[in-house]
Amino acid sequence: MKILPEPNRSDGAAGSAAELRSWKREIAPDKVVGLVATMGALHEGHRSLIRRARQQCDLVALTIFVNPTQFGPGEDYSNYPRTRDQDLEIARAEEVDLVWFGNSDEMYPDDFATRIELPSLSAQLCGESRPHFFAGVCLIVLKLFHLFEPDRAYFGEKDYQQLVNIERMTRDLDLDLEVVRCPIVREADGLAMSSRNVNLNPAARKEALALSRSLFRARELWMEGEECPVQIRQQATALYSSAVELDYFEVVDRDHLVALERIEPGRGAVICVAATIDGVRLIDNIQLEPR
Amino acid sequence: MKILPEPNRSDGAAGSAAELRSWKREIAPDKVVGLVATMGALHEGHRSLIRRARQQCDLVALTIFVNPTQFGPGEDYSNYPRTRDQDLEIARAEEVDLVWFGNSDEMYPDDFATRIELPSLSAQLCGESRPHFFAGVCLIVLKLFHLFEPDRAYFGEKDYQQLVNIERMTRDLDLDLEVVRCPIVREADGLAMSSRNVNLNPAARKEALALSRSLFRARELWMEGEECPVQIRQQATALYSSAVELDYFEVVDRDHLVALERIEPGRGAVICVAATIDGVRLIDNIQLEPR
Repeated sequence: MKILPEPNRSDGAAGSAAELRSWKREIAPDKVVGLVATMGALHEGHRSLIRRARQQCDLVALTIFVNPTQFGPGEDYSNYPRTRDQDLEIARAEEVDLVWFGNSDEMYPDDFATRIELPSLSAQLCGESRPHFFAGVCLIVLKLFHLFEPDRAYFGEKDYQQLVNIERMTRDLDLDLEVVRCPIVREADGLAMSSRNVNLNPAARKEALALSRSLFRARELWMEGEECPVQIRQQATALYSSAVELDYFEVVDRDHLVALERIEPGRGAVICVAATIDGVRLIDNIQLEPR
Repeated sequence: MKILPEPNRSDGAAGSAAELRSWKREIAPDKVVGLVATMGALHEGHRSLIRRARQQCDLVALTIFVNPTQFGPGEDYSNYPRTRDQDLEIARAEEVDLVWFGNSDEMYPDDFATRIELPSLSAQLCGESRPHFFAGVCLIVLKLFHLFEPDRAYFGEKDYQQLVNIERMTRDLDLDLEVVRCPIVREADGLAMSSRNVNLNPAARKEALALSRSLFRARELWMEGEECPVQIRQQATALYSSAVELDYFEVVDRDHLVALERIEPGRGAVICVAATIDGVRLIDNIQLEPR
């Protein structure tokens, strides 16, 4: 497994983009390259992305970079979990070919000027409380697409709005790669895997179950014939205790993320939820398949 | 010379992106590809870009697409000159390998959502009167970079602010290609070549000379020792008749396009000018080399 920047470099991370290009020129021509872009603190969700890439590609590149442009002021950039040694162990176990650690100063030089915006897909849901988030995500993902030129890139459905933004950007900008959707991985009790789960204390960890439970309940209601988002929301979120500071629970169109007044049986929908529990912001979602 | 979309296709332009990718897969692997992106109405300025590409590359691709996203409401999108047959003749004479005609419906489907912004380089100069212009230019150029994956892309210094926006975007987004600057081509009397020049009637054509003359005068003043932008502007634009509706005449930093209070002899500057003459908007610029 190759690690970039080379751990023994005297000048730290500088030049990792150039190192990457020369790695690619030597190793990657004519190979199918799969990219798994992460912020590290790897868990079973990330492992499922890597495994899928491992099955479908000749070479698997894993990037680990806590990207500053997707955090707003007062958000958890500084205490976002960073677990380099564990991450490298997981990467080795999953037979990753290249692990690349990003460096903020290199990725965003002082006179960096470029912004990517998808206003119609990024203002709602998480975008309402995190107005810079999706612009930051799309920017780093586009940079990584250019640096790695992957054939396929793997993203989890856990971050559904992010996934839709990345898919649309990829199509709009005529990028010659496939974005591969990977299903949410859950703990045995239903909690969606997230790097932020480690910040939950035992009591909050229990309360956090309310999110997945409400989504499962919502899907039951849908399967039983309920088509009204207001009804579904009311009944599903009735379970929440006061420990759950709900940000949103919204039934939206799967492609355009527009709030629905009624779910068309032939089209289905996705329900996205976000809440803060004991200071930790969590998101989850569930797809309502057409029925 | 290949023309895409194939002129005899029954379904018009649809699918030209897919045709392009298959052309590239057949012809272009391991070849150095040069891209000349234009809106057509080709003149000597464009020919100089094509010739430079012809010298430096194995394959030269010329794109012709009057890009709607870079025109604002009330601008000259609909009467921008379109001269397909002449353009093809020039392309043939200059030994272009591929001419690609863009199609708006294909390039911008109804739910197109992505925007590119470089606020610090696009709000000033032309951006003040054309607030959507550089976002539109950067968007189409990025799309073309993805479609053609050129090794080099050729742009004229005539559109200096556009060039700086494209260069910065290319660097910021880690695109693996070289943006090649090509010098302004002028008529014998000094007028900068522009597709819009054909819209000047004989009287306006004469008045239009004021722009290049003022820039040449400004450079003389600089060479004679003048370092004050206000002085330079005043003396150089004193030549203008009332037919010249001046938009701006600004002395700016060459990399960041920031208006200068004094030109540092060791750094130089660029002077950008824009004016409307008899309803035709023209731009021009001149570089003040360090002295």
